Amino acid sequence: MTMKSTTLLVVGAACASLAVVSGAQTGDALPIPPRFDDWYLVNSMIVTKDSPQANAIGGLHHIYVNAIGLPRLKKGGTTPYPDGTVFADDLREFSLMDGSYVQGKRKAIPVMVKDSKRYASTGGWGFQAWAAGDPQKPLVTDSVKACFQCHAPQKPNDYTFSTYLR
Amino acid sequence: MTMKSTTLLVVGAACASLAVVSGAQTGDALPIPPRFDDWYLVNSMIVTKDSPQANAIGGLHHIYVNAIGLPRLKKGGTTPYPDGTVFADDLREFSLMDGSYVQGKRKAIPVMVKDSKRYASTGGWGFQAWAAGDPQKPLVTDSVKACFQCHAPQKPNDYTFSTYLR
Repeated sequence: MTMKSTTLLVVGAACASLAVVSGAQTGDALPIPPRFDDWYLVNSMIVTKDSPQANAIGGLHHIYVNAIGLPRLKKGGTTPYPDGTVFADDLREFSLMDGSYVQGKRKAIPVMVKDSKRYASTGGWGFQAWAAGDPQKPLVTDSVKACFQCHAPQKPNDYTFSTYLR
Repeated sequence: MTMKSTTLLVVGAACASLAVVSGAQTGDALPIPPRFDDWYLVNSMIVTKDSPQANAIGGLHHIYVNAIGLPRLKKGGTTPYPDGTVFADDLREFSLMDGSYVQGKRKAIPVMVKDSKRYASTGGWGFQAWAAGDPQKPLVTDSVKACFQCHAPQKPNDYTFSTYLR
């Protein structure tokens, strides 16, 4: 259980504005993975109002990865994640109480799924985000492109921001 | 996956000062549970330098509970946790980068274990904390009493601060 090495998460944007889009298309749904909070917790971070990303992704993030993607996360490097990799983000409100940031209710569940053929135009990743974790409330209709804009500069890490922390 | 109800974590102290104690006794070890980070993530919080608890428990906390304790956590109320319940805390450094708090290296792994007979004098809970997650570095020799001082006021929640967040 000893700490072997540490790499700070490179903080960046995930998805575009988190306003619910009425009439959103759910055909390309990228659904909320069942029990994703049993997956490996990659890291947590809090994006405060002082962040330039506050409007887009403000909140307390718990980033999880499924078993398909975990070996690649641990390995690091520039190898792409395998198809079937899913990252899910339990995005929460937070409050500041007497010098401590504490976790609050769910704001959204952003999801990104690797399918190198289906999403070839966006680095092999599909994106969606679900308001308050509600599978009836996709946040963005053109989420694949909207989210990819911020992930694109992360190409050397297969368009992801996460790194493995021990 | 919809959010049903929300209760804010009551923030409080966990264990006394996190200085490594040389010559600490490990007989009453309360060891680091293997793979505790596969357990249920109760919540996360960041105790900043502005908290009165900064010296004692400053850092980014991930609080996990094992399967024995999870039903009681979900149920809430005043019923004591069953014997065999373990809470483990993955306590990390953090840094503030451009308005976002990001997770860093491990500072310690505080642990609390329910054994109503063995730890009858401290509400049925035993406590320990391991520097940097190193099983050779217990942080406090008299940890049971030291930690219990801060947990004692939480008697209505069986001496725990955690509540179930959906």
